[in-house]
Amino acid sequence: MPVPASVDKLLDHLHRIADLNAAASVLEWDQETHMPSGGLEARVQQLRTLRSISHDLLTSDACVELLEQADAEEELSAITQDLIRVTRRDVDRARRVPTDLVERITEASAHAKEAWRSARTHDDFGQFAPHLERLLVLSREKAEAIGYEKEPYDALLEEYEPRMTTEEVAALCTDLRERLIPIVSAIADSSQPDDDFLHRRFDPSKQLQFGRTVASEIGYDFDHGRLDLSTHPFSTAFSVGDVRITTRVAPDHFSTSFFGTLHEAGHALYEQGIDKKLDRTPLASGTSLGMHESQSRLWENHVGRSFPFWQHYYPELQSTFRDVLGTIDVDAFYAAINKVQPSLIRVEADEVTYNLHIMLRFELERQLIDGNLSVEDLPEAWNAGMEEYLGILPSNDAEGVLQDIHWSLGAFGYFPTYLLGTLMAAQLYTAAEDAIPDLSKKIGGGQFDDLLAWLRRHIHQFGRRRYAQGLLEASTGRELTPDAWLAYVERKYGDLYTLPSATGVGRG
Amino acid sequence: MPVPASVDKLLDHLHRIADLNAAASVLEWDQETHMPSGGLEARVQQLRTLRSISHDLLTSDACVELLEQADAEEELSAITQDLIRVTRRDVDRARRVPTDLVERITEASAHAKEAWRSARTHDDFGQFAPHLERLLVLSREKAEAIGYEKEPYDALLEEYEPRMTTEEVAALCTDLRERLIPIVSAIADSSQPDDDFLHRRFDPSKQLQFGRTVASEIGYDFDHGRLDLSTHPFSTAFSVGDVRITTRVAPDHFSTSFFGTLHEAGHALYEQGIDKKLDRTPLASGTSLGMHESQSRLWENHVGRSFPFWQHYYPELQSTFRDVLGTIDVDAFYAAINKVQPSLIRVEADEVTYNLHIMLRFELERQLIDGNLSVEDLPEAWNAGMEEYLGILPSNDAEGVLQDIHWSLGAFGYFPTYLLGTLMAAQLYTAAEDAIPDLSKKIGGGQFDDLLAWLRRHIHQFGRRRYAQGLLEASTGRELTPDAWLAYVERKYGDLYTLPSATGVGRG
Repeated sequence: MPVPASVDKLLDHLHRIADLNAAASVLEWDQETHMPSGGLEARVQQLRTLRSISHDLLTSDACVELLEQADAEEELSAITQDLIRVTRRDVDRARRVPTDLVERITEASAHAKEAWRSARTHDDFGQFAPHLERLLVLSREKAEAIGYEKEPYDALLEEYEPRMTTEEVAALCTDLRERLIPIVSAIADSSQPDDDFLHRRFDPSKQLQFGRTVASEIGYDFDHGRLDLSTHPFSTAFSVGDVRITTRVAPDHFSTSFFGTLHEAGHALYEQGIDKKLDRTPLASGTSLGMHESQSRLWENHVGRSFPFWQHYYPELQSTFRDVLGTIDVDAFYAAINKVQPSLIRVEADEVTYNLHIMLRFELERQLIDGNLSVEDLPEAWNAGMEEYLGILPSNDAEGVLQDIHWSLGAFGYFPTYLLGTLMAAQLYTAAEDAIPDLSKKIGGGQFDDLLAWLRRHIHQFGRRRYAQGLLEASTGRELTPDAWLAYVERKYGDLYTLPSATGVGRG
Repeated sequence: MPVPASVDKLLDHLHRIADLNAAASVLEWDQETHMPSGGLEARVQQLRTLRSISHDLLTSDACVELLEQADAEEELSAITQDLIRVTRRDVDRARRVPTDLVERITEASAHAKEAWRSARTHDDFGQFAPHLERLLVLSREKAEAIGYEKEPYDALLEEYEPRMTTEEVAALCTDLRERLIPIVSAIADSSQPDDDFLHRRFDPSKQLQFGRTVASEIGYDFDHGRLDLSTHPFSTAFSVGDVRITTRVAPDHFSTSFFGTLHEAGHALYEQGIDKKLDRTPLASGTSLGMHESQSRLWENHVGRSFPFWQHYYPELQSTFRDVLGTIDVDAFYAAINKVQPSLIRVEADEVTYNLHIMLRFELERQLIDGNLSVEDLPEAWNAGMEEYLGILPSNDAEGVLQDIHWSLGAFGYFPTYLLGTLMAAQLYTAAEDAIPDLSKKIGGGQFDDLLAWLRRHIHQFGRRRYAQGLLEASTGRELTPDAWLAYVERKYGDLYTLPSATGVGRG
């Protein structure tokens, strides 16, 4: 059907906003990968200008009018209807938060980030505490401005995970906690595989090359992306045709770079798989941070840390790093990269204990926002939680409550998306296993096409046209539960460790 | 003195424009250096959006009002007065050209560029001719819109070389032609040095490293810039603190990469030397393309192709490429890199014959704009000019009239700036030699600080605060003439070849 003029006008407007946002992403990518130090001062200003123009265009009365005029048309394509709905949500949220509050949060978090860095360096929570307090006050103000049904945390969570409620996350956590803690305790009591060899010297350029090859073979398209180095790995999209990833390389730690690259490639596969028709509109990105994380975790863990995957890749890896891996067989390697051990630092945690780190953060930040926990009492609550969940205690706040940057950015509501992503990944992968005959044999043969095609069909192509929960239910037949992930953990780690309810199926 | 509120408002407005332009430059730099092919389609749109918003902000009534309000203040700093004057010129020019004409030129040149590429590939001028005709019509329309005193070409030239007139360029050319053609003929009749060894294999990564080292030693600051590879070398500035250069490396041609890197470093030294106070305003760039080119030519030719320079660097170069240069002494190397030979392709021309290529283009495009030469007759006029000036004839249009991209972009008035830059470089360098005791000894000792400081003081720091001619007269004591350049050529090449009026001073 012909596109009404009002829709064309709306699209023009949204294209401009998308172009400005893409330009900002290019500038940020450049800043993290290539920019000389002398460029920083002006770059901060350039980004501020792009963001402010983009924000003004999105929240303008003109934009609201364009949405209304387009919405008044009688015949609208399904994509256009989704576009209007999603854009309206973005505009409504953005217009509810007063400009001066946005500016106060930006300024407070700039100071808080500095204070956090210093507090972490000097192991002095007191330096960070007043900034955290200030950000909590502003975040509550923001939650009130946006509005919520049950508790202010809902409004913050919704920013990252649309349509997900605090209560739903809490229910998932309660269920998970009860079933996971016994597993982690049992593993902690089991004998551990040797993983010392993973910390020998792996030539950095060969590591990078190996990661690049595997990323390409699982389907990451280098004609529509590229891989660079940065301090903190990330993926970013400038259009469906240009989705880039970065990694870092630790010469004495194989897993850092390789699984980091796979993780970012997983994010990027999502963005590369979005329907090209959605490009340059608010629909052209992942539907939620949780769903995004599900894609990175699926490729990093369910594929990349599986036995069949290494049946296929280990001979090549071994011959690439013969001096380090020459005497290590694939079973020993597989056990080492899947070693589970309660540890203090979230970003270094294995896939089993990782969720406990997240649950702790979610529970604490929910209470902080509600006012049920004071900033003053936070370090003690942190340590108590670590002991309860992981059975270990930080020896100082730097490796405890001060380890993550998120709170200094005012990003309350972000942490749960890591947990949601982990659970979604397991549920999606289980459904893919049911749908694709001999999936693990295919992975053992280095064939990833069917899996990627399944994800493209059920998740990627839609961009933001569908909410995460809807996509998950349509593709897996049920709403999100921890069942698939727990079953995966029990099966996989039952083979590697002695577990209370181990099924012993192993290496599926 | 305190800055009036009206000036602050004007600055805010101009900062936003500068930020948008800088963002566009980052996107262009990325496109030429790193972007995967899949990113092109969206990138074109992103650039169009940034440019259109920037153009709208510059030409808006609000901008004119801000200029007027600031200009009405009683006490304005010298910088602010310059800022208002230069910005007003930009705004006036931009507002005189109707938006629909800008769009017609953009569209026509997009088609013309395609047609030009195909015409060059197939050596078929007929494919390009109608597009060139169309661009000439539009350029005349643009010249009429902008206005001029004597001829339409003035209005076009002024875009690249403010305050320079067609008559002035023509007078320089007439003078130059008479004195240069006999020199070129005499060289063509002299015996030639051997330069075959420059075309042996030079390891690409060593070439790049050598160029990087020298760029850094002449003063290019890698904390405020970086060097990347691209098909066509260029320099670009995102702020005074981030000025980047690119180069290309030909494995079998030493001069391509090395002198290309020096050339771009020369451009970049100019931008890195602009007063930081001018950053994020229209004053923060080179004052004209001619003056910009003078900086690149000065470092590439007067420094980089001088004998003292290689007295200093040749031992290092020789030890870096011992397999190729082991048996070549510095005299033979110096003669080879300064070999003069009339040739067909401008971008491959030596520094002596280069100006003849430019004069030909200037004379032809001036007549094309005036209507004194038809597109149909252009190829013949080209060939006649090549024979008259350089004594050689292209065997086809691909290596003749179709070789340059400029006309397909509608960039009439651009070519003369190469010639102006060459002449300015010689005049500036001669003044620097007078002002700096033992300059050539210093260069022979690898000391470039005094020369750079002299250029910073007399040229760089001002950005666009002064016109090129004013800077030149203030720093050299006279207006632009070909004298200094001809004296330089006669002295240098009198030593290398048998010239009619050779002074024999040589290697100064």
